[in-house]
Amino acid sequence: MAVPEQPELTIQGWGPRDATGTRAEDGDAGGVEASAFPDLAEVLPKAARRHLSRELGWTPRRTPPVPVTQIRLAPSRLAEDGRLRLAELLGEEHVSTDREARLRHAGGKSYLDLLRRREGDASDAPDAVVRPGSTAETAALLALCSELGVVAVPFGGGTSVVGGLSGVDADDRPSISVDLGRMTSVHALDVASSLVTVGPGVRGPTLEEHLERHGLSLGHLPQSWEFATMGGYAATRSAGQASTGVGRFDDLVAGLTLATPSGVLELGSPPASAAGPDLLGLALGSEGALGVITELTLRVRPEPRTRHYEGWSFRSWEAGLAGLQRMARHDLLPDVVRLSDPDETRAELLDGSRAGASLLRGSLRLRRRAAGCLLVVGWEGLPAAVRARRRAAASVLRGAGAVRLGRRVGEAWRRHRYAAPYTRDSLLDAGLLVETLETAATWTALPTVHDAVRGALREALGRRGKRPLVMSHVSHVYATGASLYVTVLADRDDALPIQQWLSAKRAATDALLSAGGTLTHHHAVGADHRPWLEREVGPLGVEVLRAVKQRLDPRNVCNPGVLLPD
Amino acid sequence: MAVPEQPELTIQGWGPRDATGTRAEDGDAGGVEASAFPDLAEVLPKAARRHLSRELGWTPRRTPPVPVTQIRLAPSRLAEDGRLRLAELLGEEHVSTDREARLRHAGGKSYLDLLRRREGDASDAPDAVVRPGSTAETAALLALCSELGVVAVPFGGGTSVVGGLSGVDADDRPSISVDLGRMTSVHALDVASSLVTVGPGVRGPTLEEHLERHGLSLGHLPQSWEFATMGGYAATRSAGQASTGVGRFDDLVAGLTLATPSGVLELGSPPASAAGPDLLGLALGSEGALGVITELTLRVRPEPRTRHYEGWSFRSWEAGLAGLQRMARHDLLPDVVRLSDPDETRAELLDGSRAGASLLRGSLRLRRRAAGCLLVVGWEGLPAAVRARRRAAASVLRGAGAVRLGRRVGEAWRRHRYAAPYTRDSLLDAGLLVETLETAATWTALPTVHDAVRGALREALGRRGKRPLVMSHVSHVYATGASLYVTVLADRDDALPIQQWLSAKRAATDALLSAGGTLTHHHAVGADHRPWLEREVGPLGVEVLRAVKQRLDPRNVCNPGVLLPD
Repeated sequence: MAVPEQPELTIQGWGPRDATGTRAEDGDAGGVEASAFPDLAEVLPKAARRHLSRELGWTPRRTPPVPVTQIRLAPSRLAEDGRLRLAELLGEEHVSTDREARLRHAGGKSYLDLLRRREGDASDAPDAVVRPGSTAETAALLALCSELGVVAVPFGGGTSVVGGLSGVDADDRPSISVDLGRMTSVHALDVASSLVTVGPGVRGPTLEEHLERHGLSLGHLPQSWEFATMGGYAATRSAGQASTGVGRFDDLVAGLTLATPSGVLELGSPPASAAGPDLLGLALGSEGALGVITELTLRVRPEPRTRHYEGWSFRSWEAGLAGLQRMARHDLLPDVVRLSDPDETRAELLDGSRAGASLLRGSLRLRRRAAGCLLVVGWEGLPAAVRARRRAAASVLRGAGAVRLGRRVGEAWRRHRYAAPYTRDSLLDAGLLVETLETAATWTALPTVHDAVRGALREALGRRGKRPLVMSHVSHVYATGASLYVTVLADRDDALPIQQWLSAKRAATDALLSAGGTLTHHHAVGADHRPWLEREVGPLGVEVLRAVKQRLDPRNVCNPGVLLPD
Repeated sequence: MAVPEQPELTIQGWGPRDATGTRAEDGDAGGVEASAFPDLAEVLPKAARRHLSRELGWTPRRTPPVPVTQIRLAPSRLAEDGRLRLAELLGEEHVSTDREARLRHAGGKSYLDLLRRREGDASDAPDAVVRPGSTAETAALLALCSELGVVAVPFGGGTSVVGGLSGVDADDRPSISVDLGRMTSVHALDVASSLVTVGPGVRGPTLEEHLERHGLSLGHLPQSWEFATMGGYAATRSAGQASTGVGRFDDLVAGLTLATPSGVLELGSPPASAAGPDLLGLALGSEGALGVITELTLRVRPEPRTRHYEGWSFRSWEAGLAGLQRMARHDLLPDVVRLSDPDETRAELLDGSRAGASLLRGSLRLRRRAAGCLLVVGWEGLPAAVRARRRAAASVLRGAGAVRLGRRVGEAWRRHRYAAPYTRDSLLDAGLLVETLETAATWTALPTVHDAVRGALREALGRRGKRPLVMSHVSHVYATGASLYVTVLADRDDALPIQQWLSAKRAATDALLSAGGTLTHHHAVGADHRPWLEREVGPLGVEVLRAVKQRLDPRNVCNPGVLLPD
């Protein structure tokens, strides 16, 4: 399969996207203008800006990133003989130490990543970027890294929001970014078994386009869908917007190949096996710390013949959670479920640049409802099945006190499903702190977790006359509980922005763990969460992971900065 | 919760069950008569016996087990100071070295287990039986075993059919059976989160009875349901007859506690987590080789308000598989799916002691159909949902050429769902080899696997004038493939019965792996499959498991005879 030209993330943000929502062309790294992100006035209407200003105690101001040309980048620490050995293995053209390649592979897209890059700091950039072309080459590469004492950080879409690409190494060894952009083939399609085998570098749009020609779809649609790769989804245990229906990415992986410094693992026996502990589950969520995923066999499904998205409104968060829980218990869940809390719903109502917001306002007025809590639900599949499932769900929702807002509200959400990270660029330009975090908890613990996270963030980010806006939604629903996705906006502390967020993140993480939440539901551990891994799996759990890592990566060259605490 | 009196498996078989299908009372081990199993004439009608005789070249004969009193049992090898240390830890009353306790904990219920016990061989009996009462006691027990060099084999229901309880140890150290019969409490029920937390020794009937009082159900119904325990299901990655609908036992475990010689692991973060690799999945299927499961948190569901089982008939195996595949692809699967191949269908038609067989014959005659392939399907849940799902499935089944045989055929199967292991006792008494094996494969590989297993068993068990009857069915269906459950009957080689089966099993396993099947879909590895584990997960996969075991069980005292090859 030919690899189509793919858009790239910008070095200092997600966009640029022009006012119409179309991505603008990137320039080369040296030439990209710092002001490439649209002005806030273009992405947020006046009412919303005024509301934010009042809520946060924030005065809009221009805080643009330094020009890309002024980003500080230390010389590559990769020794020349090491570079030669890499070039010998992969070919000279697949080993880069130039500025542009190194900057484009520096870190991920968390708020902290963007802050650093906007301030001109690229101290986390790799010393080289390499591009292996096969499983065998990747295994040989990792063995070579082990021999040379070079840290290897796999790079898929570069969209990590948890410091997954930080490349931090306690021994401060040189590091390389292992870009999987050459391994993007669709190797095999077994239509009868609903399985497709792909390279780790394939992105969602490319794969969906390929599958569509066979009437099939993968259906994994996280917000990073335009850029993130299949290998990245597996390595981080991703979930997508339709995961309530199609399952988390974990559920979609029927098998994978993991290249490690000690050899190659071929894992998974579709459809299912009882032949000992689940080794495939060890590779999922391994975040590059055990090796590099070089091939995946994924479960696909028929392209939905019909799609139906609609909005509903609950009077309260409690009523909304009770409604979802009831649907979940009786196996009546839609494929997409997204319940916003009152703060997020209010924000949706204000974000009037979108047709959705005014639609939503009108729809609520018509039904004489206050803002309450917005629920977006979506069904996909065979028309008869969708009809039957919608009918059953509607009866539960009405029983739980919800009113239907109609299809246009749902469709408006769907059209803008990938927009948030673009908007963030403009918000950052205007002096805001913008970050998200997420967790999951049982239905019993969820309200406590919600309160605890909000309380912790408000306390940590509240200062004289300033308070954060903390907006939450449930986006993945299970019979036993649900995820909670939290967006925080606050006036940025221009003097110490990184410390400002680190202390808020610390408070929120402590709070959510104490309340019974999990460390992360779908963003992975990365560098940012690893101090808390022991609280999640216990000291002996960490020791088990260390034993596995020791066996596969005895010299600790595989992404040592993530997952396991130092 | 009070522990009700529970029936026990007999030492030399599964039954006894009287002719009405009710279990007869067991006597004490010394007094149980060898002839306690019902005569073959009581469990199989004349036509079926004649058919078997003709098919197999088998002459019915009496080959009863030796009297239980004559089973040879070596003196306990547990040193007196070791026994005292165990008694000190657990209490004198929870450490047994008497004949009855040791015989009742000798091996599992595979054909080979039964052959040995029927011949009077109990060389695999543990040297003592101990009964810890808590997680802390179990952890202390395993640490003590590690110190003393005593092998610990966890014992739940004793129903393993893969040598999971063999207790074989390369160093021939003394072994104890760790009976979990004291840890049978229901610790907590979180109705809102659909989670119940239980001790590992709880059996299905007890748990279902408890849940029923709250309008809930677990729904895990393997053939061993009357005896097997929750801990055993988890340790072996069990699947039940309704697993197509409710999920494999893996899917039902939201969390568990694993006591190991190195400490206690608390695993699982319901509803889901992305905090690193899945350690819970390492404990599932660990078969006692990493420690002992001492607590489980399980996903429950509302008790079905309605149940609908029915029979369908396909003209051919190929048509049947195609029909199931189509239902699976479109998410239209019933909760119970069981498709018999022509050989198994013919046997169902002959087994006329059951009302089901004559019903089936009548129903087929009415529709002018030959035997073909019988499909039993079952739906459970809310009436409206069941109705909608049935309608959708019926349309796919008709489209695939199936005819509906009606509800009574389905209900007849349901009534007899736990009968087969009882019948086996009588078949063994009459000179037959009776064993099952199972695998799973993708839809593409499944027909090849089916052919390969049948071919291998026929070749291995065919002798002058004799051939085996090999009957198969699909019992768990996934979008990507299905399981295959194979029952073998043959004239037993009275001189070398163990070797006869071992060579057939070896041939069948080699054949199914070569054809693309998995080593086991729901019976686990045990002692019987471990020579093939490396073919399933590769040499490096085995090394990863060894590294985990080394960390948790450095002295290799946890069930060393299973899972990992020597």
